[in-house]
Amino acid sequence: MQPSEWSALVAHLTEIETLDGVMGVLGWDEQTYMPKKAAELRGAQLALLSRLHHERTTDARIGRWIELLEGDRATASDPIRSACLRNLGRTYRREKRVPAELVDKLARARSEGFQAWIEAKKNADFARFAPVLQTLLDLSRRRAETIDEKRHPYEVLLEQYDPGTSVESLRSMFARLREGLVPLIEAISAQPQQPELGGGWDETKQWALSREVAAALGYDFDGGRLDPSEHPFSTGQGPGDVRITAHLDANDLLSGLGGTIHETGHALYEQGLPVAHTGTTVREAASYGLHESQSRFWENYVGRSKPFATWLAGVVKKHFPEKAQSPDAIYRASNRVERGLIRVQADEVTYNLHVVIRFEIELALFEGTLAVKDLPSAWNTKYREYLGITPPDDARGVLQDVHWSGAAFGYFPSYTLGNLYAASFGAAMQQAIPDLWARVERGDFAPILAWLREKVHAQGHVLEAPEIVRAAVGDRDHVEDLLAYLWGRQGAIYGVKRT
Amino acid sequence: MQPSEWSALVAHLTEIETLDGVMGVLGWDEQTYMPKKAAELRGAQLALLSRLHHERTTDARIGRWIELLEGDRATASDPIRSACLRNLGRTYRREKRVPAELVDKLARARSEGFQAWIEAKKNADFARFAPVLQTLLDLSRRRAETIDEKRHPYEVLLEQYDPGTSVESLRSMFARLREGLVPLIEAISAQPQQPELGGGWDETKQWALSREVAAALGYDFDGGRLDPSEHPFSTGQGPGDVRITAHLDANDLLSGLGGTIHETGHALYEQGLPVAHTGTTVREAASYGLHESQSRFWENYVGRSKPFATWLAGVVKKHFPEKAQSPDAIYRASNRVERGLIRVQADEVTYNLHVVIRFEIELALFEGTLAVKDLPSAWNTKYREYLGITPPDDARGVLQDVHWSGAAFGYFPSYTLGNLYAASFGAAMQQAIPDLWARVERGDFAPILAWLREKVHAQGHVLEAPEIVRAAVGDRDHVEDLLAYLWGRQGAIYGVKRT
Repeated sequence: MQPSEWSALVAHLTEIETLDGVMGVLGWDEQTYMPKKAAELRGAQLALLSRLHHERTTDARIGRWIELLEGDRATASDPIRSACLRNLGRTYRREKRVPAELVDKLARARSEGFQAWIEAKKNADFARFAPVLQTLLDLSRRRAETIDEKRHPYEVLLEQYDPGTSVESLRSMFARLREGLVPLIEAISAQPQQPELGGGWDETKQWALSREVAAALGYDFDGGRLDPSEHPFSTGQGPGDVRITAHLDANDLLSGLGGTIHETGHALYEQGLPVAHTGTTVREAASYGLHESQSRFWENYVGRSKPFATWLAGVVKKHFPEKAQSPDAIYRASNRVERGLIRVQADEVTYNLHVVIRFEIELALFEGTLAVKDLPSAWNTKYREYLGITPPDDARGVLQDVHWSGAAFGYFPSYTLGNLYAASFGAAMQQAIPDLWARVERGDFAPILAWLREKVHAQGHVLEAPEIVRAAVGDRDHVEDLLAYLWGRQGAIYGVKRT
Repeated sequence: MQPSEWSALVAHLTEIETLDGVMGVLGWDEQTYMPKKAAELRGAQLALLSRLHHERTTDARIGRWIELLEGDRATASDPIRSACLRNLGRTYRREKRVPAELVDKLARARSEGFQAWIEAKKNADFARFAPVLQTLLDLSRRRAETIDEKRHPYEVLLEQYDPGTSVESLRSMFARLREGLVPLIEAISAQPQQPELGGGWDETKQWALSREVAAALGYDFDGGRLDPSEHPFSTGQGPGDVRITAHLDANDLLSGLGGTIHETGHALYEQGLPVAHTGTTVREAASYGLHESQSRFWENYVGRSKPFATWLAGVVKKHFPEKAQSPDAIYRASNRVERGLIRVQADEVTYNLHVVIRFEIELALFEGTLAVKDLPSAWNTKYREYLGITPPDDARGVLQDVHWSGAAFGYFPSYTLGNLYAASFGAAMQQAIPDLWARVERGDFAPILAWLREKVHAQGHVLEAPEIVRAAVGDRDHVEDLLAYLWGRQGAIYGVKRT
């Protein structure tokens, strides 16, 4: 490959990344400050940009560039070019194989699916959603088979979110996780519940507190912002522009703060991506699971720890002198475990079972051992079996998540993959930084961020996520790390012991 | 022209308008909420969008569409298509005639000019700016001659901002205006100065007050926003998204509020443009002067009137109960007239002389009767002659404005054109709405907005600005209207009489 051809490729990919960033700003604005009457205009703006983006990602020159990279002896010895060949080749190959007719049908089924899901959820009426879900499933299976008929169709879909992860590794990890979590949750449920902190938290002061916490963790406000939105999110438009939002609640200090710490974790990853590799596909997160590991690590491993509670008690006292809390009260309230029906409201212990249930169901659907019509009963059976509770209706059961209405099959595992990776990061970090918790107790998070920057953030997408994790923590057993961590923390709080 | 061709043209122009809107959002974000480290990324985003925009405005199909419109008998009888042919034809013809080499040279000279101007202004060193100003002038004259060698070069440049306005009409209006304003300012200066309101205005309360005032004038917050920025501006991204910003000052309630009312005036125009004509070049302001007439009308004609002061006194009392002001105090403080050196700080009486001076100087430069090297002395002479003051240095004199550094010759007249149009709108409206001032005193601005909506906003760019004004007010003498209005108001305040 001639230097001029590599430059042309990088310029082309940079243009795509720039369009991504523009759409990021518009998306951020839409959820934070956009006037409500601008919705239609914003739709037209995003549609135009998406079309320009699509034209570029399907540009015929990309096929030629991939061929040149493949035929180039220098590529093999250059990790950036090899990664570019792998990442770009994957996306391009996938897109190219799917016929336009199928892309069209899926797009239509998605928008139909979203409408049907909204209605079905409102009326707790699964029958309203079933036929369009069937269509979404059929089209998704066809799509997976078109992309690669030799691989497990679920793995082909999973690859969009967590490339490098196999169905078999997930199946075995998730089964072991389920086996380990069910008794933990049973043991906790037999104990008295931990107390909450109570309400009356002025929101203006909460914003100041949230900003102080995010900054203390290492979030760079010169290259970011924290704003209110209905649902918290983080968005990275590129170097120097990574934003987070929060949704604070006057009745619950810890829920808003937990969300902020979660998004800060995502944002720290984005702020640490390797700027030098813009336009090579390498300045991007290696996978959704790895991205989630960063938010979960800060939110749970650090943010629900006792030393963190100790530091936080001082910060709370500073912003709410009249409402000072003991570290122990914060620690206990942060770690309430409760069997609940709704995934997005779940604590860090039960959360993984919500995901395991969805994974098992998705897999059964794609393997043909579960029919769409039997979904609600399969769902309810698993909730009863794993969590000991039964949804009173499908709105609080099988219809609760938006994902399937958009054909995002294979997305759920990323959430728990993130928790698994985070647990191993925690275990490895504790060995590498002996005074880790003493530092956290003083509000000194610099060594944690430095470790994550080096081992994860700066790696970008040169290696695949599982390789990055292996290089960072060695051959650790993520399931065992997560179980040991959860039993350890909950044992201290609820007085339960692993048997 | 086939219906399909007209549709293709409208789709193409809609795409250009959509890109304008996206750039508008990015520009708004840049001045309000963008993290400071995002500056370089934002530059790259805007550069890409500008290129996409340029590709579309210079698309070869436009020439063909113009030919089709010209050859179409239906165009003459269809006001929208005629306007589209005129507006599009003008832009396209102008752009097409200027050789790429000249576009390039001007772009380079502009960025060099901006840097040189920044330095020159900082050091009050005109010599630093002179050579690059000479280049900007030479290139601009060449550009004007390339576009149309038969017309006055200044008029060719003016056409970018105020199409339909001739140099001769400006020359005569501005000369009469100067002759009428100089004695008014002299008369006022001989009188004791009006008192100010004093400081100590809490900014949070000022924001609430500003929002209430903007909403009362008719600004639709469901399709807009009001946010802080260093310099106030308004920006319309398209239907449903028109935003304004303000810069408030704890020491001066009226300066921040005046700016807000000014931007509200611009925004009301944008919110009233004819949505149905998207993609035809007709859903746009007819000229910069007409745009400015809307901001100036609300800021000055309405916002500095005695009835408005009466209403505002109640609003001030509501937000600042401890700082209640009499209507008379507000009225007097709103109408302080002072000979000052700086255009952007000038009151509504002296402001026009600042513009007249710039117009006369620009004209002399383009007509070759003034050389760049003689600019500072020509400037200072005019300030002494018209305003009775002499700049102590060029930073507060000839170097104060950014416009020339970007080759924006012909821009200044729009400001005063806006004041001239606004004066005639006021005179005509007072005849059409007999209880105008009684309504204003009650905070009822609906009849004013309805009049402007019908006569100006909803007209879009079907007719040229001077035609829109004529249709709205008849054959009024704008200069006489402005002088009569200023003498009338200042006469009541300073006790001066027109001789």
